This record gives sequence, C-alpha cells and structure tokens, in this order.
Amino acid sequence: MSRGNRSPCIVGIGQSEYTKWGGIMDRSQFQVTAEAVRAALADAGISAREVDGFTSFSGDANEANMMHVAIGGEVLRFSGMVWGGGGGGSAGGVSLACAALESGQADVVVVYRGLCQGQSRRFGKFSGTRIQGNFVAPFGLFAPSMMLAMVMQRFMHEHGIGPEAMAEVALSSRANANRNPNAIMFDKPLTREQYFASRWIAEPFRLYDCCLESDGACAVVVTTRERARDLDVKAVDILSAAMGSGPGWGQGPLASHNMPAEDYASTNSRRLAKELFAKAGVDPKDVDVAQIYDHFSGLVLMALEDYGFCAPGESGEFVASGGIRWPDGKLPLNTSGGQLSEAYVHGMNLILEGVRQLRGTSSSQVADARTCLVTGGLGVSPTSGVILGVH
Amino acid sequence: MSRGNRSPCIVGIGQSEYTKWGGIMDRSQFQVTAEAVRAALADAGISAREVDGFTSFSGDANEANMMHVAIGGEVLRFSGMVWGGGGGGSAGGVSLACAALESGQADVVVVYRGLCQGQSRRFGKFSGTRIQGNFVAPFGLFAPSMMLAMVMQRFMHEHGIGPEAMAEVALSSRANANRNPNAIMFDKPLTREQYFASRWIAEPFRLYDCCLESDGACAVVVTTRERARDLDVKAVDILSAAMGSGPGWGQGPLASHNMPAEDYASTNSRRLAKELFAKAGVDPKDVDVAQIYDHFSGLVLMALEDYGFCAPGESGEFVASGGIRWPDGKLPLNTSGGQLSEAYVHGMNLILEGVRQLRGTSSSQVADARTCLVTGGLGVSPTSGVILGVH
Repeated sequence: MSRGNRSPCIVGIGQSEYTKWGGIMDRSQFQVTAEAVRAALADAGISAREVDGFTSFSGDANEANMMHVAIGGEVLRFSGMVWGGGGGGSAGGVSLACAALESGQADVVVVYRGLCQGQSRRFGKFSGTRIQGNFVAPFGLFAPSMMLAMVMQRFMHEHGIGPEAMAEVALSSRANANRNPNAIMFDKPLTREQYFASRWIAEPFRLYDCCLESDGACAVVVTTRERARDLDVKAVDILSAAMGSGPGWGQGPLASHNMPAEDYASTNSRRLAKELFAKAGVDPKDVDVAQIYDHFSGLVLMALEDYGFCAPGESGEFVASGGIRWPDGKLPLNTSGGQLSEAYVHGMNLILEGVRQLRGTSSSQVADARTCLVTGGLGVSPTSGVILGVH
Repeated sequence: MSRGNRSPCIVGIGQSEYTKWGGIMDRSQFQVTAEAVRAALADAGISAREVDGFTSFSGDANEANMMHVAIGGEVLRFSGMVWGGGGGGSAGGVSLACAALESGQADVVVVYRGLCQGQSRRFGKFSGTRIQGNFVAPFGLFAPSMMLAMVMQRFMHEHGIGPEAMAEVALSSRANANRNPNAIMFDKPLTREQYFASRWIAEPFRLYDCCLESDGACAVVVTTRERARDLDVKAVDILSAAMGSGPGWGQGPLASHNMPAEDYASTNSRRLAKELFAKAGVDPKDVDVAQIYDHFSGLVLMALEDYGFCAPGESGEFVASGGIRWPDGKLPLNTSGGQLSEAYVHGMNLILEGVRQLRGTSSSQVADARTCLVTGGLGVSPTSGVILGVH
C-alpha cells in the first residue's frame, strides 16, 4: 500500500464489556454496539459528526444507517459490508474501510461488530437453517465445530500433529487472558490436566479448543495519515489489509467441503498471506506478535503454517518449543486471550489487541512490538488479514 | 475521479429474461443470477478466471463466494455488499466496485443483483418482519407503498404538484417499454384513461405508479481503463459513483420517518447529487439521458428537483412540457421502461440501460448520448448514484 497522505491507519479502539452469552440483557445489542463505537471515537478524539463511513461483516445486524443516526452523524458516504465469510470478514471490514479511504469515498470510517449471542442465537449450536441447501447436514455436520473437525483431523493426519499442539494454543491463550482484566476468563486459570480431562465437543476438538460464546461489541476508527496527524493519539499504520479466497472454496467446510484436495486441510489463506506480506513489504520473520483467529485452537496451527511462520508440518514443534508463549516465544500469540479466553466478537477483539500491542498498552505486552499480523476467520470464504505497524 | 489507468469503467452487461413474479420457477434464483453474470462476462469478452471481485446490495442472497465457484473463478480478492438502503444500493454496488478498483484491491469486479420474487417473497406485500422494532407499523404503514405515500403527499402539498405529473412518469415509461422487447410490459400499451381508472394502492399512488413485481437478474462488469483497452468493447466510463445519506435519515420513511423536517419530502439525495456532479465535473444540464429509480413514479419527480434538473417545485411543469419524453424531451428518462414497465431488478436494470444508451444500443436511443445519470433507490439510507460517460 502507498504510504501517501491517504494511506490508512487506526486511530481509535473501543469495546463494550465482554460477558458470557446472555450476560448483557439490560440493553439492546444495538445499544451495546453504539457504546463501542462511541468509545472508539472518544479514544481517537474524533467527533461523531466527522464519521462518514461504516463497515462491518458477517451480516452484522446493527445497521450502519441507524448507527449513523444513533451517534449523531451528519453525512454518510460509505456503508459497506464484507459479503460472506462469517468471521472471515473481521480483518476484511478493515480492508473495506481502506478501500473507502484510498479511493477517496470516505475520510473517517468506523469498523464495528456487535454480537450479543444471548439476544440473537448461539453460533456454536445446531442451527436448523443451516440444513437448507446444505450438502453436509445429511452427514451429521450441523455445528461449526463438527464441520471444522473433519478438516482438522485431516490436517493432524497429514502433518503428524498430536493433541498436545492444540493444548498448547488453548493453555497459552488462557495464560494471556489471566493477565487481561477485560477477558471473560481473567480469573479462571486452566491446567493441562483440566484441558485433557475436558469433554469432546467434536473430536479432535475438546471443550477448551472451542471459542467462547459471549456478548460484546468492538469498534475501530480508521482514517488517513493526513487526518491522523492532527490527533493526539499514536496512530497505527495499516501496512496491508486484504480479503480473499482461493479457487473452489465456496463456503468452505462450513457448507460445502468442496475445496481442492491440496487445500482441504488449510485455512484458505496461503495466497492471501503472500499478497498481504508483499503489499506490506514485510516477511513473516518481521512480525513481532500475532492475533490469529481462534474459533478453534487447531486452526491456529494451520495458520502458523499457511502464513509461513513455520514450514508445513512444523506447527506442532513450533508451539511445543514455546514459540507462541508470552513473553519469550518467537511469536507471542493472541495476547489478550483471544476468542478462546477473552471473548468471541467474531474476530474484532483480535484487531483491538493488535492495536494495543503496537501502542504498548497490552496486558501481555510484547517488548518493542512494531509489526503485528491479525487474521480474520479461517477456513471460510472470503478469509482476511491485516498487517499493522508503527515506526 | 481521476482518469488515470485505474479509473473505472463498465465493459460488460448481462441479464436474464424478465418475467412477472413467479415467472421463473424452472431453475433457482442463484442459477438465473449466474446466467446474468456469465452473460455480462461474455459481453465484455473477459474470462471468469479473471474476475477477482463481486459486489451487490440489499442483502442479495446469491452469495459471492458461491458465485465465485459457480462461474469458475480462481482468486477472489474483494467481496462487498452495500450495507442498508435496499434498492438505494444499486448504484452503490457500482460505487463499491470503484472503491475496490481504485484502491487496487481488485481488477475485475462483477456487480450483480438477482431477484426472483416468486422464489423468495413479494417485496411490495405486507411483511410481518417489518413490524419488529418498527415505529411506523402501529400506524398502519406496512408496505413500501404506504410508507412512501406519506412522503409523496407532503411533497405534492408543498410543491403544488398534481396527479397529472405522476401520470406523465408512468405513461412515458410505458411508452419506452413498448419499444423494448425485453420489457415485461412490451406489448401492453397504457392510456391516460386506463391510468386514471386504476385503483389506489396507497393514495396518492395508483396501480400504475408502483413498480412491477418481477423475476430477473442483472450484472455489469467493472474494470480499469487500462484493462479495458485490450477488450473489443466500447467501454463506458464511470465519471463518478457514490452512496450516502444526510443527517437523521436512519432507514428513512421505510422505517423511521424521523428525517429532518426540511428533508422530509425529499429523496435524501441533495448532498449526494452535488458531490456526484462535482466529482464527475459535469452539471445537470450536461446530462443527455437519465435512469431514475422508479419504485414509485412520484419519487422520480422529487429526484428531478433534488438532482437539479429543475428548480424546487417545478418538476410538475418539467414533465408536463414533455421534458422526460423520448425522443425530444430535455431529459429522456427511464428509456428501457424502468421499473414501472421493464422489470424490477432493484435498480440494476437501470444501470444496464444507462450503459446501452452510451453504447448507442437502446431501444429508445437518445441521439448522441454521452452522459447519463443513473440513481439508486430514493428515500432510503444510503441512497446512491452514478454518472456514466463516453467521449
């Protein structure tokens, strides 16, 4: 991406409280989301009157045109949604904001996602609507855990990965959450024994391999470098942001399982990762800290390989050697606790943590962090990613 | 917009057959939409393998990630939906494609909309879901015709517009449709007597003031001028494209009726129109032909004023003097028959007709047409518009 006057950066982050699903019932999901939007604007020091764009993903129900009115906006110039991909669109929402800014269609874009599962439906549960026009339900794949379990089994088989590797992701995330007072699992430590004693959700995923079911909302304010200069905040550059998919993915394992054989046990991110790094002008080795979408712990292992942090088949060793542990690992990961232990806001909480790391304000701060990768949801189409940086 | 190498242009248009609602039941809405997409690519002479972006609007159910697979796409880089606005997003879908191209996120974007009302629901009918969280249903406003009737009454009262003006829009569109073999009303002439004898749908809207309820799909291929140079088609430049809303609109009359008093009887397009013309570097008087969103005939009158084709209060005289009639009017309008008499594809069919006019292939061709305005849906948030041009 060009580093000109219109090059995009994040200047504000905001969030609601995070609770277990059903924990926020005293006000509407829309209201909670508006609170996150206002918090992000306050953090940036930008007036709601200046916001002229909104983006989101995954069919966010907190409609932009109503949000525009709710926060007191004046002129709306861009209202965009990543189409498809579910949580795959979280970094994609940022990517869409970049398109708005770089094309000159908007100047201040708020990316947000509000998801109070207690007020809508529990994503992880069996959903009757998933059966319609779906070729996997007749084979017993009703919930995301079931759909991705098959992909994970294949990955483990092909790459010689054992359950210890998934345990490492879950335990490392929980340790990070135990340092983050905003994490739902802040005061709930998790031991290796507890992990292995937990029940199967869908083999090879145990209870602690699955993301939380939670209530909460997140927002980030994206604007141009030019506008950021006048703000009293440390702007975080968006070095690159992209969404995308390879051939044949359709809705991926969440509906079709029709991906090409060589991509089956993958996150659908190999091509995207190459383009992201190339655009940003950095390599995987330049990344100081990463926030990788953890709907299920095992997909994080796949992403470590697909994004080139280790060679194919080596993610097990990478994590076994402490590679993702804070503070000394080669690549400290999901430092807020991620979606396994902080909250599940469809990936947006990972973007907030990426910004905190580069501002130096994380509860599991990586020393001198200057480059952070944040991915959107994995194993879907489109998936997405963003590389953040500070000089 | 810059007229550089990456400046966007339309290089292909495609459509399915248009029928009354329920007329296409032999294949799925998705299949019909894929046919339109393939037709647009064939028209452009571009392979499906080269398509790396899709946009749409109004929650189009024909998902981009599935379309990408269905047409045989390879790499998907952009998948975006205009958020909100219903038909207001039709030109917005083009605007979103421009953002993708101008920011470098994609190179060939297909904008499409498939809507077979026989397979989903009749938009114009009472909808139970509209009642939820809706403040107008308790007052008896259930269908779009009812919701916009109030706005139209106010406009007619304030501007001294009579029913003859709406009749002129309906009759002129029908005359155009009678020259267009693809129009649903091709062989159904409409007389002034028939118009005035028709029943009220929601006063002041009679039957013939309301758009058709139909089945069909449309697609356009948008790419850069650079890529267009190698194609054997007459590229139509997108001089400007934008979506947007003024303050306080929320979902406009379709849900809130909370717009500022001075904007109540308006299309929510005054600011948008100014920005569109400024970006394109043209004035209303430079526009040779227009396709204005005609969910209801009366809103076309409002748009003539809001877009500056005549002064406030003068749209009645403008149309009474033959201003919108083909071929001699000052501004021939909805030359394919529009949504009143060609088909209701949520505004996308208007974009196709805009391209035909500038290619010189319309069934009601305006001599030497070089500049065409196409609007998205009116009276919603966001609304949208696009100005097309050829040298």
